[in-house]
Amino acid sequence: MKNFMDENFMLNSEEAQELYHNHAAKMPIIDYHCHLIPKQIAENHQFTDLTEVWLGGDHYKWRAMRANGVPEEYITGNKPSYEKFMKWAETVPYTMRNPLYHWLHLELQKIFGVNTLLKPETAREIYDECTAKLQTEQYRAQGLMRMFNVEVVCTTDDPIDTLEYHKQIQEKPFGTKVLPTWRPDKAMAIENPEAYNDYIAKLEAASNVSISSYADLLKALKVRHDFFASMGCRLSDHGLETFYAEDYTPAEIDAIFAKVRSGKKPTQEELLKFRSAMLFDFAVMDHEKDWTQQFHVGAIRNCNTKMFRQLGPDTGYDAIHDLKMAAAGNKLLDRLATNNTLAKTILYNLNPGDNEVLMTMAYNFNDGTVAGKMQFGSGWWFLDQEVGMTNQMNALSVLGLLSRFVGMLTDSRSFLSYPRHEYFRRILCNLLGEDIKNGKLPRSEMAFIGQMVEDISYNNAKNYFKF
Amino acid sequence: MKNFMDENFMLNSEEAQELYHNHAAKMPIIDYHCHLIPKQIAENHQFTDLTEVWLGGDHYKWRAMRANGVPEEYITGNKPSYEKFMKWAETVPYTMRNPLYHWLHLELQKIFGVNTLLKPETAREIYDECTAKLQTEQYRAQGLMRMFNVEVVCTTDDPIDTLEYHKQIQEKPFGTKVLPTWRPDKAMAIENPEAYNDYIAKLEAASNVSISSYADLLKALKVRHDFFASMGCRLSDHGLETFYAEDYTPAEIDAIFAKVRSGKKPTQEELLKFRSAMLFDFAVMDHEKDWTQQFHVGAIRNCNTKMFRQLGPDTGYDAIHDLKMAAAGNKLLDRLATNNTLAKTILYNLNPGDNEVLMTMAYNFNDGTVAGKMQFGSGWWFLDQEVGMTNQMNALSVLGLLSRFVGMLTDSRSFLSYPRHEYFRRILCNLLGEDIKNGKLPRSEMAFIGQMVEDISYNNAKNYFKF
Amino acid sequence: MKNFMDENFMLNSEEAQELYHNHAAKMPIIDYHCHLIPKQIAENHQFTDLTEVWLGGDHYKWRAMRANGVPEEYITGNKPSYEKFMKWAETVPYTMRNPLYHWLHLELQKIFGVNTLLKPETAREIYDECTAKLQTEQYRAQGLMRMFNVEVVCTTDDPIDTLEYHKQIQEKPFGTKVLPTWRPDKAMAIENPEAYNDYIAKLEAASNVSISSYADLLKALKVRHDFFASMGCRLSDHGLETFYAEDYTPAEIDAIFAKVRSGKKPTQEELLKFRSAMLFDFAVMDHEKDWTQQFHVGAIRNCNTKMFRQLGPDTGYDAIHDLKMAAAGNKLLDRLATNNTLAKTILYNLNPGDNEVLMTMAYNFNDGTVAGKMQFGSGWWFLDQEVGMTNQMNALSVLGLLSRFVGMLTDSRSFLSYPRHEYFRRILCNLLGEDIKNGKLPRSEMAFIGQMVEDISYNNAKNYFKF
Repeated sequence: MKNFMDENFMLNSEEAQELYHNHAAKMPIIDYHCHLIPKQIAENHQFTDLTEVWLGGDHYKWRAMRANGVPEEYITGNKPSYEKFMKWAETVPYTMRNPLYHWLHLELQKIFGVNTLLKPETAREIYDECTAKLQTEQYRAQGLMRMFNVEVVCTTDDPIDTLEYHKQIQEKPFGTKVLPTWRPDKAMAIENPEAYNDYIAKLEAASNVSISSYADLLKALKVRHDFFASMGCRLSDHGLETFYAEDYTPAEIDAIFAKVRSGKKPTQEELLKFRSAMLFDFAVMDHEKDWTQQFHVGAIRNCNTKMFRQLGPDTGYDAIHDLKMAAAGNKLLDRLATNNTLAKTILYNLNPGDNEVLMTMAYNFNDGTVAGKMQFGSGWWFLDQEVGMTNQMNALSVLGLLSRFVGMLTDSRSFLSYPRHEYFRRILCNLLGEDIKNGKLPRSEMAFIGQMVEDISYNNAKNYFKF
Repeated sequence: MKNFMDENFMLNSEEAQELYHNHAAKMPIIDYHCHLIPKQIAENHQFTDLTEVWLGGDHYKWRAMRANGVPEEYITGNKPSYEKFMKWAETVPYTMRNPLYHWLHLELQKIFGVNTLLKPETAREIYDECTAKLQTEQYRAQGLMRMFNVEVVCTTDDPIDTLEYHKQIQEKPFGTKVLPTWRPDKAMAIENPEAYNDYIAKLEAASNVSISSYADLLKALKVRHDFFASMGCRLSDHGLETFYAEDYTPAEIDAIFAKVRSGKKPTQEELLKFRSAMLFDFAVMDHEKDWTQQFHVGAIRNCNTKMFRQLGPDTGYDAIHDLKMAAAGNKLLDRLATNNTLAKTILYNLNPGDNEVLMTMAYNFNDGTVAGKMQFGSGWWFLDQEVGMTNQMNALSVLGLLSRFVGMLTDSRSFLSYPRHEYFRRILCNLLGEDIKNGKLPRSEMAFIGQMVEDISYNNAKNYFKF
Repeated sequence: MKNFMDENFMLNSEEAQELYHNHAAKMPIIDYHCHLIPKQIAENHQFTDLTEVWLGGDHYKWRAMRANGVPEEYITGNKPSYEKFMKWAETVPYTMRNPLYHWLHLELQKIFGVNTLLKPETAREIYDECTAKLQTEQYRAQGLMRMFNVEVVCTTDDPIDTLEYHKQIQEKPFGTKVLPTWRPDKAMAIENPEAYNDYIAKLEAASNVSISSYADLLKALKVRHDFFASMGCRLSDHGLETFYAEDYTPAEIDAIFAKVRSGKKPTQEELLKFRSAMLFDFAVMDHEKDWTQQFHVGAIRNCNTKMFRQLGPDTGYDAIHDLKMAAAGNKLLDRLATNNTLAKTILYNLNPGDNEVLMTMAYNFNDGTVAGKMQFGSGWWFLDQEVGMTNQMNALSVLGLLSRFVGMLTDSRSFLSYPRHEYFRRILCNLLGEDIKNGKLPRSEMAFIGQMVEDISYNNAKNYFKF
């Protein structure tokens, strides 16, 4: 019998414990994909209270509260901070077996040194203690990153972003490298011509390129791509329902672009062709600069129109999609490989049923140039929990090389999420430890396996992304 | 080492045993979805022999026997009762690792007090002993329900059903509440105009509404819906291949309905539009009455035409389908939510690959009004076994709130299926117990976790359905 | 704690060990589906060195090496044999948790008596020792089959194949029966009219039938089908992206065939209709001869055009597909069942998400004539590893009769793959042993369960295929 979340939490064998404590725990963190707000980092943001830092933008917690029957006014509404916190505390015991229950207690333990369980009876005490700590220097934005030995974070940024806060941070470094990531989803979003043309106007301004053709669009984007590179960007990212790899001609793409620029809605076929062209052209840019391109596929977003109108995107109304992936995904990567312009690539899926599809897709395009060139990414969003991570690592293991995995990222909007790297590393060590214990991996190779743990925790990412 | 199916069957930790024996075992049963025949309940049916009660309509056993090379005459044919039973007994050892092997022995143990393994050598003895017991009062239909402390059962009924047996039961109560469930699949089934028009004629008679337009159809259905409500109905149910949420206009639906009424087959597009309209309109009625709507999606039925012609539906020739669910499912629920007419809802899938899709779909529509408003239903049909239930509860746990789960239902045609609630509860307790043992849940919260077990076993359903 | 891959490798309970050592280990091997080269068997091929026999055509290893950053010249290129081997040895430690790591060490242990771990430091010694052994009689092709008590192997052959090497082997038997398997994929491949017409010319020559209509095509194929039968063939095999069961008329098929014969490309609709017709007609032939038909569905092949041009098919550039299976698969089997021409059938899927779909599809068509008539086949290709096999056996168990399973096949191109039967049997015994240990199967039925292990390892295949 083990105690709840003790030092050997999720480490169910001596071998796992050895791997974690001797190898994983000491490694710095490279958080190569997250959604932190650069301004908060640059300004070394101080949080008012535990409600702000913990419940502020966390749609995971919001979903749980709604499911627990908490009215919206206590979630995203105007109720006083502590009342909101109390509703969360009331919900917490009902989240048992949900990763929230582990994450929140890990955060209390590792960040605030609080070892009490959160529930209504303990809410006041925990709120007060944590809120008090949040007033101190080490609990400001940069302090939290220092606390967790975060070497690099990559934020997620639009091509038109000025990256002014990245610049500020680079001018006043504090220990963690903060790099931008190129996320050009809006440059593809022709389904809404009005919003798209607004965006193009901003892109013209940002790039100082007048955009009247698809070629101009690429030119403007290239200007920004170069600028991102100059600011240390090493990754791109695409949030897609699925992959797109239609056949198209340059003339077709020109015509579609012109149509949208004139304010007309594209047909479904035009939409798919345009996305196919843009994905290809973005990938070529990434390859030129030796960046890593990331594809996050399989979300169906903003499913609750009523709440979308009220709260906007990323508020807890997204779900797992079930579109086909294999044909278009393989075709897109094939085009790039045949064109000799396939960058290092990470594929992330949201539907766990796509694990094996994406894993085997990626491995069709390793070419012997870089160990682990094609990556099957760590469990994403809904899959970023023990079952999901375990399935991801098992699929990667049995269909490829776990040893070459670039490992964990938080994908988080919160400064409190770094303990999730610990969570991931514990799961990794547990899988390996279990195999050693059961005679499936050789105990005599403990040194190699320890090195593998260190690599997956840190070295692989460091070498792969070349920060 | 544990003995076969002893008192701690499937309870692999002391914590699991404590949860089961102290909390789960004592709770009454609410079987909120089943296919019992109301007439048999009302008439307190007495079973001739073990073959009738056990093999009578059980297509799970039939499938196993066919796979074991048993000729159809011993399954659904005219062979003498004991000869059929003997073929089943010969098949039983070959079902090891299939849930049938557990269910049947659980039924022998818990219902008949027989602790012998069923195999050809023991067949005679078991058959005689059980058949003798079936002649006694407590083994009649109502006695079996009393034996298992069944507080409520909800049968599955067509809108045109007179519910005369429900009435009889209500007039002569015997301890178990027997309520109807509104299952209007036939009112949607325009793909076969001839059968549909026959059905509409019966609906006209039952509702006393003359039906010459879609508006009339809704009016007639509403009459019956009101009648079902007056008989205590609290749930609806829809058996669908997938969700339907096409765009349509009232005029289109009117035209489609008129076309089918004139005997013409609708096109595929018309079919989908009509289904979309009906699902929406049914849902509005359910919401008005605060009923819970159930969607059972993902079966492909009557796949063996030769045997369908010989035996009809529900005879063991159905399979798991693989249609898309996410886009239409989210859209249907979104329409209802935006219209402020989304009833409490339970989504059940047959393809285990849809677990996460339906689970995250459901949770897009919790609105803080009722704890656990949107439910991801218990493992259904082919998934109603240890692996399937475990996967369902894990998906529910990591993507939502297990604590708010309304739990188990038998979906059964048999009076002997109540031990499956025990089966479910053991699996539930084992999952929780394992987590406590491994330090993933706090032992100090045993009281809360015990309460959670009681809630999922009984209280949640009681509060949710408001019987 | 267990030692790495010791005698109880993957046997985690005493019960599993008893089942394996007393029952599974002693059974001969029937390898009813593989891709061995008949010429190498007939000529009792002697291998030059460990590189040839181990890395020669093994695209599993090639994929791993490419992912590990090994340049192609060391994989399929012209680098010296030992240099290639060294690159493999360098890759091996990085394959930990991949089945390759187990397979290769199992092969070293069981075939070469080498108990050293392969890594760069041990590469020279292992290479020399194994290469020396390969010079001896017992390490020639036939010796390796004798070493593993292989009673039958079924190769995979095109209808136009002369089967001359099968004939040679039958004239000079050496202990293992070597039978052909009918794999007529090319006779369906009208998507490329030029290649197809070349093929038809060869089929005309092989069958001595002039082919100018679809009826002629069937006649010519029937001549070859009869010839295969005369050579002992008992199985057919089809490699398909998915199932095909379109509606069609004989006239349509005639017209499509004529069109392709005239060199014109068929439309997508014509392609699907033609495939549907051929699958039906092939199945009828198989049924007439009481053969077993195999369907391997769900691969997307030759995804890397650049490498396909360089290396051709089956070189490690294939992946898991995600096409629909349920509607067409059930319809194809239904047509055959309704026509009373459904042969014994094995369905294999490559996408693990199709496990339950194919398993329940198959079981719709058991008809009581043969125990286990409809089979859900063992984990195939990417799924031929512990996780995949376990999932396959669990799906088969909970949805059908594990006891009637015809068990393992290597699907291999290598003479060194027979230890995979051991791998499979260990996993099987472990599943059963675990269930006994946990009280889910009765220890008192150990004799029956032992028999079940022997049946799945050998007897079921022997009785089912009637070699």
